[in-house]
Amino acid sequence: MSLSQSALTPLSRVRVAVDCMGGDHGPSVTLPACQAFLAAHPQAELVLVGTPEALAPAASWPRVTCVHASETVLMDDTVEVALRRKRDSSMRVAINQLKASGEGAEPLAHVCVSAGNTGALMAVARYVLKTLDGIDRPAIATVMPNRLDGFTTVLDLGANVDCSAEHLLQFAVMGSALVGAVSGKADPSVGLLNIGEEVIKGSDTIKRAGELLREAAARGHLHFHGNVEGDDIFKGTTDIVVCDGFVGNVALKTAEGLASMLGDMIRQEFTRTPFAKFAALIALPVLRHFKTRVDPRRLNGAALLGLRGLVFKSHGSADAFGFEQALTRAYDAARNRLLDRVHDRILDTLQALNAQPVAGGADDTVQAA
Amino acid sequence: MSLSQSALTPLSRVRVAVDCMGGDHGPSVTLPACQAFLAAHPQAELVLVGTPEALAPAASWPRVTCVHASETVLMDDTVEVALRRKRDSSMRVAINQLKASGEGAEPLAHVCVSAGNTGALMAVARYVLKTLDGIDRPAIATVMPNRLDGFTTVLDLGANVDCSAEHLLQFAVMGSALVGAVSGKADPSVGLLNIGEEVIKGSDTIKRAGELLREAAARGHLHFHGNVEGDDIFKGTTDIVVCDGFVGNVALKTAEGLASMLGDMIRQEFTRTPFAKFAALIALPVLRHFKTRVDPRRLNGAALLGLRGLVFKSHGSADAFGFEQALTRAYDAARNRLLDRVHDRILDTLQALNAQPVAGGADDTVQAA
Repeated sequence: MSLSQSALTPLSRVRVAVDCMGGDHGPSVTLPACQAFLAAHPQAELVLVGTPEALAPAASWPRVTCVHASETVLMDDTVEVALRRKRDSSMRVAINQLKASGEGAEPLAHVCVSAGNTGALMAVARYVLKTLDGIDRPAIATVMPNRLDGFTTVLDLGANVDCSAEHLLQFAVMGSALVGAVSGKADPSVGLLNIGEEVIKGSDTIKRAGELLREAAARGHLHFHGNVEGDDIFKGTTDIVVCDGFVGNVALKTAEGLASMLGDMIRQEFTRTPFAKFAALIALPVLRHFKTRVDPRRLNGAALLGLRGLVFKSHGSADAFGFEQALTRAYDAARNRLLDRVHDRILDTLQALNAQPVAGGADDTVQAA
Repeated sequence: MSLSQSALTPLSRVRVAVDCMGGDHGPSVTLPACQAFLAAHPQAELVLVGTPEALAPAASWPRVTCVHASETVLMDDTVEVALRRKRDSSMRVAINQLKASGEGAEPLAHVCVSAGNTGALMAVARYVLKTLDGIDRPAIATVMPNRLDGFTTVLDLGANVDCSAEHLLQFAVMGSALVGAVSGKADPSVGLLNIGEEVIKGSDTIKRAGELLREAAARGHLHFHGNVEGDDIFKGTTDIVVCDGFVGNVALKTAEGLASMLGDMIRQEFTRTPFAKFAALIALPVLRHFKTRVDPRRLNGAALLGLRGLVFKSHGSADAFGFEQALTRAYDAARNRLLDRVHDRILDTLQALNAQPVAGGADDTVQAA
């Protein structure tokens, strides 16, 4: 792995652009989260983007720059509306902060965080930032908890419904860079999500992706474990699980749905009878510890990978604690130069594999805005 | 819906063929399960298939016929081995019991249950029984628990990795027949698993499947709810969730993996400290009730649909209680004439939609054995 030296030295001064208007709750969640984040990260700086009224309380905060935007992308706005009608949205202006204003100039921010709607965020980010060389399609990567009390990074989570084998390879490379940057593992392992461990399993695309991944691994470009199944996400069999966006989205939503159902059932059981309520009182510290351990807010913050800028997506329904986690995740990624790492890894792997960007892939869904 | 009269009158005498050698544990699990099943179903009859030694204890049981088979399909046997090398396997002989020995003769059994390996079971069943007219590909349907304290039927679970829109329609029709037979709902609702509720979401195949399903619904052939997402499986938004085998398999394994991790974490939390152990003692009845409610063994028994005979698949690792549930599920389906229902529904829907069997679909994976 020949990462350039620059990729390995953490940035000393990181500025995070925050779309303060996005998400189900807007500034009532994002501002308290920003305040908590600043208190916990004395080196960090924030660029807050929103309407003047919304940002008024933050005007005097230290290490904060306020940038005004007149519009807000709503949670049910279409990509079309977000891209073409709301050019002065807080989402778009926040992403704009990642672009340098001129040749040789520093961009105002190193990473952007928004809790706005995923489709709009991906489309705007892709339109404003463009994809990295060698990347046909950006991917969304999130983390899910595993049995090892760590987490498994899963991508793609819904940006791409039909993926070629080459796309899956690109996801593996980007995921490796992400885990390398965030968790410090030099050589994180990659699993290809499939319906069995044997190499003969799966569709033609999956089998071909397996070949590409084995080839890349043989050349030392990534650590390919082999096929994994849905339950391996939670076993922590590999650091990274790669799949197309349709499958990843279904897996994530299925897991969220099951966790939520089981959580509600435990609550129901512990309130069903007077005795159960008494038992709940006694068991409260145990139940609380369990709840903290499986709290999905801790893992909030999905990375949009493959763009010429770092964008993180918070769950739309996140509360202040959850949004703060997304800010932290974004800050850590930028500090550890995730963008350079993805760029270097992609360059290394794709050059060596002699792969060409896949025809029809690059920016084929986003037209001029 | 014009179901023929025969499909609505339950069978009075149902014989279940049991592959007693299949699964991780073989006769040590299947025989006790059969005994419990017979005790709970005084009308039921069993056709036990296995080696003479294995079946010896059951020789004198009432309402039991023993049929000998000299071979056993192992859990890691390939489809090839199961189909071509082990023609006298308990799995194959059990499935053979579903075929009448001559013109006008009654088959020895109405439904077959095996805990043997899924790939082999599907291949052997497909080879021996063939698919129903109008069905290109059989599907595997299982049930998952939902918030309504009922269950959601999901198919396909892994028999088909690449599905056309027509296949997904066929799955919807077969799933409707299954739920109609097993739960008695005349008009169960169908959801198409997707990455969003809007009709514009998903791949071209999914969008086309949505069109076919809306068309079938408009003609009154099934009750199509629309797109659903992964979490809707557990919300119980629809009675049936239709997806291709790859996605279904990932969703099932992801859910199993998460449930297992959370179960282990609860156990860990309640044994972590002396106080936690004390709390566990107090909370024991509550925890037990919760465990019973989410016990996956209760829902054991997946249906292989679309064949000219009814085959049910038990989890390979099922214990006697789990295997007994699969027997009961199979018995109920046969008693309620699932095979006739699937046949009638398929005929109705496909004739009306003027659909032709899809080229290259029928029996394209199984060659002469």
